[in-house]
Amino acid sequence: MLFERVAVIGVGLIGGSFALALKQAGACGHVVGVGRSSANLGRARELGIIDSTAPDAVAAAHNADLVLLATPVAQFLKLFREVASVLGPKAVITDGGSTKRDVVTAARAALGRKIAQFVPAHPVAGAEKSGAEAAKADLFRGRRVILTPLPESSDSAVKKVQAAWSACGARITRLDPEEHDAVLGAVSHLPHVLAYALVHELASRENGAELFEYAAGGFRDFTRIASSHPEMWRDICIANSDRVLEELKKYRRKLDAIGKLLEAGDGAALEKLFAEAREAREKWMHSS
Amino acid sequence: MLFERVAVIGVGLIGGSFALALKQAGACGHVVGVGRSSANLGRARELGIIDSTAPDAVAAAHNADLVLLATPVAQFLKLFREVASVLGPKAVITDGGSTKRDVVTAARAALGRKIAQFVPAHPVAGAEKSGAEAAKADLFRGRRVILTPLPESSDSAVKKVQAAWSACGARITRLDPEEHDAVLGAVSHLPHVLAYALVHELASRENGAELFEYAAGGFRDFTRIASSHPEMWRDICIANSDRVLEELKKYRRKLDAIGKLLEAGDGAALEKLFAEAREAREKWMHSS
Repeated sequence: MLFERVAVIGVGLIGGSFALALKQAGACGHVVGVGRSSANLGRARELGIIDSTAPDAVAAAHNADLVLLATPVAQFLKLFREVASVLGPKAVITDGGSTKRDVVTAARAALGRKIAQFVPAHPVAGAEKSGAEAAKADLFRGRRVILTPLPESSDSAVKKVQAAWSACGARITRLDPEEHDAVLGAVSHLPHVLAYALVHELASRENGAELFEYAAGGFRDFTRIASSHPEMWRDICIANSDRVLEELKKYRRKLDAIGKLLEAGDGAALEKLFAEAREAREKWMHSS
Repeated sequence: MLFERVAVIGVGLIGGSFALALKQAGACGHVVGVGRSSANLGRARELGIIDSTAPDAVAAAHNADLVLLATPVAQFLKLFREVASVLGPKAVITDGGSTKRDVVTAARAALGRKIAQFVPAHPVAGAEKSGAEAAKADLFRGRRVILTPLPESSDSAVKKVQAAWSACGARITRLDPEEHDAVLGAVSHLPHVLAYALVHELASRENGAELFEYAAGGFRDFTRIASSHPEMWRDICIANSDRVLEELKKYRRKLDAIGKLLEAGDGAALEKLFAEAREAREKWMHSS
């Protein structure tokens, strides 16, 4: 057993799946959960995701040897402060936030010397479902978890946190926080914004109901991520706004270029662009 | 049996599935196929999709009582001319094109008085796969097929064509060609352009390979339609370019609005927009 007592702050899709995966791997003893919704925490207990609840992060982190922050990222600063106030010297902290520069800034501001015990992580394994109900033990199996260890992170903390995510079945890779936010801004945050934007645009129209009536499988898959948790994605977009704005600018330039091809009726160039995109996607699908 | 001899011009996903569905329903006798790729036609014969091949649309439509055009739409004008030259007085024509105004214009230009025998159709049941290999008998089952009958279409032709698509298991609805192109421009053509644009934008970058390495399930679903047939989507976008351009303009305005929220750090407005989009999508998912 890697950890006697695990504190999960935010028992949703990520936090709940982390607890279930550690339990299934026999890697942890008692799991204590904290959250804003007592109904959700109650459900998490019924589902065997957590063994007990605590009223706040202070109580949960007390005596824990592993703490996971898995709430929307805007709450991290306050939570780091609470955790820091009770964290034992051998305990480690990790998180499930989809942005990393802001998380690192908050950790540095709140953890003081205990920053050595923190190893930031981003499990790239979301789903549009949320809440404890959506948690599953195999969510991270074969999926990528990006660690962004800090210069301050102790070797033993990195080892322990890496062991925890490995026990969940994840493939571990490392990036620095800057690079993480740039890469994820492009391949994850931007597409979420684009999907929300399309659904919102069509739903806002007078004939929105008619439009949706004719939407089919392509639309369903394209917009799946527009069913994601609004508060979580608000926090991600605000935390990574400079990168998301940069990506939006580049994307709009690409749309402008396509618009020009359409205006010119340049079928050959359009087909070339579509074919290049298809080829790139097929190559990726076959390699991943 | 509804039709003794069915001619399928273009034995791909749509044409092949139409033939298989009619056969499975016992609604047709002999199916003759035409296409540019003899390898694909050979595969279609092996798979029992077609019973024979013809060298061109003229030979295929000869003695057919139902003709389906299921090639990319830019080929329709030529094909309508060829079919018109041999079409018997009791035969009917339908098509599987994803645009309708251009198809109607081509039909009016090429079919002469035989326009009465044509009933345009759009099976809203695509997939990113193409070719006879991708065809399946249940592709249209429970899916929407939009008929856009013309003032010139004879009642008996409308009945026969509707019966053919119904035999495939489709839910039939009707729109006029203008409305069809406006609605599909928004819910289908635009998302395809957006997906192609995202993949192309990321693949074009120097660090494209690294970016794709971190792309996950959300990206995979968002971009599924970017694996669609480039020539087919070139023709759709060119045929419906005015509507696609109009949709692109509205979409870019929405992205500009979201960009302003990000610049202002207006998390509340961003969350409201995300939540409204999610709600609209969930409502649609539960009703469809």
